[in-house]
Amino acid sequence: MSVTAAVGFLAAGVACGLKTSGGLDLAVVHNVGPLQHAATVFTSNRCKANPILWSEQVMQDGIVSAIVLNSGGANCYTGTRGFQTTHATAEAVAERLAISAGDVLVCSTGLIGEQLDLDKLTAGVWDATRAVADEDGASEAAGLAAATAIMTTDTKPKQAVRSADGWTVGGMAKGAGMLAPGLATMLVVITTDAVLEPAQLDQALRSATRVTFDRLDSDGCMSTNDTVSLLASGSSGVTPELSAFTEALTEVCRDLTLQLQADAEGAAHDVAIEVVGAVSEDDAVEVARAVSRSNLFKAAIFGNDPNWGRVLAAVGTTGAEFDPYGIDVAMNGVQVCTAGEPDQSRDLVDLSPRAVHVLIDLHAGDTGATIWTNDLTHDYVHENSAYAS
Amino acid sequence: MSVTAAVGFLAAGVACGLKTSGGLDLAVVHNVGPLQHAATVFTSNRCKANPILWSEQVMQDGIVSAIVLNSGGANCYTGTRGFQTTHATAEAVAERLAISAGDVLVCSTGLIGEQLDLDKLTAGVWDATRAVADEDGASEAAGLAAATAIMTTDTKPKQAVRSADGWTVGGMAKGAGMLAPGLATMLVVITTDAVLEPAQLDQALRSATRVTFDRLDSDGCMSTNDTVSLLASGSSGVTPELSAFTEALTEVCRDLTLQLQADAEGAAHDVAIEVVGAVSEDDAVEVARAVSRSNLFKAAIFGNDPNWGRVLAAVGTTGAEFDPYGIDVAMNGVQVCTAGEPDQSRDLVDLSPRAVHVLIDLHAGDTGATIWTNDLTHDYVHENSAYAS
Repeated sequence: MSVTAAVGFLAAGVACGLKTSGGLDLAVVHNVGPLQHAATVFTSNRCKANPILWSEQVMQDGIVSAIVLNSGGANCYTGTRGFQTTHATAEAVAERLAISAGDVLVCSTGLIGEQLDLDKLTAGVWDATRAVADEDGASEAAGLAAATAIMTTDTKPKQAVRSADGWTVGGMAKGAGMLAPGLATMLVVITTDAVLEPAQLDQALRSATRVTFDRLDSDGCMSTNDTVSLLASGSSGVTPELSAFTEALTEVCRDLTLQLQADAEGAAHDVAIEVVGAVSEDDAVEVARAVSRSNLFKAAIFGNDPNWGRVLAAVGTTGAEFDPYGIDVAMNGVQVCTAGEPDQSRDLVDLSPRAVHVLIDLHAGDTGATIWTNDLTHDYVHENSAYAS
Repeated sequence: MSVTAAVGFLAAGVACGLKTSGGLDLAVVHNVGPLQHAATVFTSNRCKANPILWSEQVMQDGIVSAIVLNSGGANCYTGTRGFQTTHATAEAVAERLAISAGDVLVCSTGLIGEQLDLDKLTAGVWDATRAVADEDGASEAAGLAAATAIMTTDTKPKQAVRSADGWTVGGMAKGAGMLAPGLATMLVVITTDAVLEPAQLDQALRSATRVTFDRLDSDGCMSTNDTVSLLASGSSGVTPELSAFTEALTEVCRDLTLQLQADAEGAAHDVAIEVVGAVSEDDAVEVARAVSRSNLFKAAIFGNDPNWGRVLAAVGTTGAEFDPYGIDVAMNGVQVCTAGEPDQSRDLVDLSPRAVHVLIDLHAGDTGATIWTNDLTHDYVHENSAYAS
């Protein structure tokens, strides 16, 4: 269950020929209300794709009736014609669902700089909206089809659900490469039947993404198309405490984040870089992110090599507060460095499990943060050197 | 010819067992004067190796009589004992050359977090200083031996020389992985027989490194041990115009920089990322550096894939002044993107040559800069996943 777990949402995933494989490549999620409240977080990349430019306009009133998502092309750097394609897609959805195009979010993912085939998109919208209108549009299978249709190099669909006192929040995500902050080449749709205002949804979503999707930094590359959307139908009739809702939403986001990490392109290890003893959360994030972006560190992890010198070399590039010779480093529970000197033997570190935990104690304060990343592997190079061809 | 090209310098490279291969691993360069003026640029990494901590003290008076360099170990994060090893190495050189230990720079390169064997170092210093004192310490062969002894994963020694009206500047460099700014995991020794004061050397060296070594960003990783040193013997008796000297020095630095790029670990392409139309040099460097650090872009280049969307996705992460939809991109002479829209077909771009030129026109000003980088290859992953083992 994912986007159809909450009451008031219909979904579909269809194949319209955008993917050369013939797989599912277009999804629609329809919020049948009674509310059509929404919040979104978009990529902070200044080179924004056409669907982002469109969806930013849609979000000005916080009202979203439907979202249409396609894989098979990012519709980014495709100029005026590309924007018209996005616009026409929203219009097609609106016409079929008898809603306003100004309430239709559009998301695209795939190669940059190539025009999308509008005829295929339109046919896909026709099929998907017909499927949505079917009685099984609210089914688990419909949610799974939508989660499958947004996949690119993902090897499996990603879904998560949490339920509480009479309301539910669930979602789907895609993203396998270009995973980095602000956000992580991801398209995420989260739905809830809780009764919440757009401003409350916005507050909850920003709070949740800040400590989940924004902490996933698989390969340091930021996408032009990232969108995380949260749609509320209000159909449960229940207005939860915002803190309780934010907590459940954060759990859904964290669940999806870890699924994205586990399916990152070519990855052989899932690495959690935890910084403690920082004077601020910003410092902890800066330090952990620097390590997550060190290709030398990431290649060493791939080789099961506990090369903690590469951890410290990355830490030293940051402006965080610390004494460079007062730092401890532990890898998978073995404290290899204490106060800047070798401690336990690196030979004791077992990096053969997929899960790797790097603990860095700055001994400067009492705050911490974790960044999730992956190793740098032959498969990553292979997948990303052959992507467009 | 390299460090022995200028008159007044003796060099040697010997094997003392730090490298398990048995190769040359310790070099000494002796400035026999009459001047012992010097300038240095050290890594801006806050996690500095012991030789950096030592050499920073040596540089306080701008006087350097000799420099001793070893491969086979970085002597970084090795604590008090590691600092004592650096100190003892300088003392050994000083005693053998009858100079002050406070005038001996020390450089180390290799794995972080492992103690160096002081007995081997001392024996190496003994051999090297004896060789330096031999008549052929000023020979081309001696310079080559020194350039060879500082190699780690380098496949060839790197040397460069420029001569002008009665004076000469020449140097050697090592560096193959962890090539990034401030500086590029490099050890560089440059010598000159020009008559210049330490302050003049410092000004010339900072001017030269700013547009050469600091513009090399092979893999985005910053070393703990980088040192670029410039030693002046004054033995030519000629005091050049500082501008002419800086120009020759910059040529030597650029020559060495391009040799480092061409020998970067596992690289299959040498990529020049040239940004023009920027409002400031800082903007141009920021944009070019962001592209040079995009693993997705670098993997695409390895695959001979002119994926210009990944160029723009990296450009969009910067804070430089530009209109995101007013940017042009050309790859190896083919303008694939004009004002944010596809222009010539990507199929026209030939990335099979080792040299790749990416030209990004921001159309925001009239300043530019180039960053030199490499592609992300299977061999890079292989070399850096198996380094410590």
